[in-house]
Amino acid sequence: MSDKEMPDEFELIKRHLAPLSAKEPGAFLLTDDAAVLPSKAGLETVITMDTLVSGIHFLESTAPEYIASKAVRVNLSDLAAMGAQPAAYTLSLALPEHIQAGLHPQVDGVWLERFCEALAVEQELFGVTLIGGDTVSTPGPLTLTITAIGYVEQGQAIKRSTARAGDLVVVSGTIGDAAFGLLALKGELEALSAPSLEILIERQHRPGPQIALGRSLLNFANAAIDVSDGLVQDLGHICTASGVSAVIELEKIPTSAALDEALRRSSFVKSDVLGGGDDYELLFTIPPECEAGLQTISKERNVILTVIGKVHQETGAIGEVIVIDHAGMPLDVMVTGFRHFGSMT
Amino acid sequence: MSDKEMPDEFELIKRHLAPLSAKEPGAFLLTDDAAVLPSKAGLETVITMDTLVSGIHFLESTAPEYIASKAVRVNLSDLAAMGAQPAAYTLSLALPEHIQAGLHPQVDGVWLERFCEALAVEQELFGVTLIGGDTVSTPGPLTLTITAIGYVEQGQAIKRSTARAGDLVVVSGTIGDAAFGLLALKGELEALSAPSLEILIERQHRPGPQIALGRSLLNFANAAIDVSDGLVQDLGHICTASGVSAVIELEKIPTSAALDEALRRSSFVKSDVLGGGDDYELLFTIPPECEAGLQTISKERNVILTVIGKVHQETGAIGEVIVIDHAGMPLDVMVTGFRHFGSMT
Repeated sequence: MSDKEMPDEFELIKRHLAPLSAKEPGAFLLTDDAAVLPSKAGLETVITMDTLVSGIHFLESTAPEYIASKAVRVNLSDLAAMGAQPAAYTLSLALPEHIQAGLHPQVDGVWLERFCEALAVEQELFGVTLIGGDTVSTPGPLTLTITAIGYVEQGQAIKRSTARAGDLVVVSGTIGDAAFGLLALKGELEALSAPSLEILIERQHRPGPQIALGRSLLNFANAAIDVSDGLVQDLGHICTASGVSAVIELEKIPTSAALDEALRRSSFVKSDVLGGGDDYELLFTIPPECEAGLQTISKERNVILTVIGKVHQETGAIGEVIVIDHAGMPLDVMVTGFRHFGSMT
Repeated sequence: MSDKEMPDEFELIKRHLAPLSAKEPGAFLLTDDAAVLPSKAGLETVITMDTLVSGIHFLESTAPEYIASKAVRVNLSDLAAMGAQPAAYTLSLALPEHIQAGLHPQVDGVWLERFCEALAVEQELFGVTLIGGDTVSTPGPLTLTITAIGYVEQGQAIKRSTARAGDLVVVSGTIGDAAFGLLALKGELEALSAPSLEILIERQHRPGPQIALGRSLLNFANAAIDVSDGLVQDLGHICTASGVSAVIELEKIPTSAALDEALRRSSFVKSDVLGGGDDYELLFTIPPECEAGLQTISKERNVILTVIGKVHQETGAIGEVIVIDHAGMPLDVMVTGFRHFGSMT
């Protein structure tokens, strides 16, 4: 860790962050210039980086525990989409003065203490260790960047660019909960029952990276991505990278009971889930002959897997995702994420 | 690369950033969830992360070329201090709206274009390739985080914690230029000649990471660090980590002719260089019997190497750095960086 312009940075690192690095000897308890990770025979290193900005990626009132969860999990979700096993991460914290001083207008207690305790829980849950990073002051909003590092068997990483015509399109879990959780947080789902509200908000705050599922997709899925921008947009990424198009059926998109209630009790309709992001489920394509294997994986990993459509070569332009209704008629869907959900600010 | 809330982010990545990743096949032209780096037999992976915030780590008026240089180089300097050979980096850009729009009150042209062209030059100079990252919007200042990845021969990384009593303390290049360059940028060195001003400011803008020197220190230096916080503070880090103290001689600290001129023409004195940061030279300790080897390395790497003091076991407390004058009398030096230099804002 390096310091710059943060008065008590060494103390902060020593007290709050260094203990998080204890399991990885190559992190040198965050006292050196860089971390050293051993090479692992037969494995490749998988690296991803994501930044969260307060007011953009989470509401300013969000509890530090949720921010810690989200910062770690959105990164682990990217590793999961490649089929990698997460191992370590570096963390950059750009902290406004009130957080350095332990004062947050909307958060009780010492922000950093709560944030780091939550990181410890994440580390335990996902088997990752902090190995380095940076802490700096900012006159702007709290900004967190994590670089997550994982390993995958040599040559086995699952890419976006290798979907093939004829592949089935599969998605894990349920779609739309996180985006509707954000609506709930913003007070736009007022008619919803308390338990359903809680479920949707929890999905927005605490995405569950599908790491075990990703590992099961090695040598099984042709292509994969995690659903962060929105189902249609992310499937579009696979299609563009693979030079194909896709047709998915609106009716088949799996939704939770909580989301179904939200649809019944608001003016939103099911097609609104197509553009909602933050699900962090895995979206992948498999050769049709592998369909039977889905059930095995679903049981093994305790996750719902739903075939929602098919990859095409000649239907639609390259990169196009066509969503059809129960009558087989294409919907007029803007292929963009965040259609209804916009910025959090 | 993932996107969130930046309208033209995909276009930005495709146009400006993807070309920077072309040399590393595992970066997938920044179109996948994560990058995949091959494992390298006999080598360990070295990882470091540094964040720069506009107004904190560089003046807001700084040209994008200098920001690119600095963001890359401060990270490569950390790898150099471990003796690692840099290979790749990920980049997180949190961009204020005016930069996304190509408008910067104090910078001509399209900021991002100039920034990325400068990154290309850095890549060429140091043999590194962009392999991933993130671009997000921020309502705050421009914030850049780089995670740099390098390789070092197994078990050979040079640490801070392995200095031994009796070691000589050596520093590369000249010390203090960057800190005085900052003073110059702030208009506090007005009596200085134009060429000297330029030299000092260039050292502040464009630190030269001592990568080749770092490689030469493998199996030669006992401990190393890069001088980022300030000479005394960074030597203190080595001493604390190693459980030793050090005595250095003020007169021996190498300074440039430009800095000497600055000292003559201002009220600053030589001891003011002790707390100035941003030099990004290497500070290391060697067994006394290795002193003769310094000359060989100095010639090979074309860098000045100066013995400035000695590591002790029984003089001073653990972690203490004592600076003595020409008469051998200890100076009253606060062991803190940035004594005179404070924040850039």
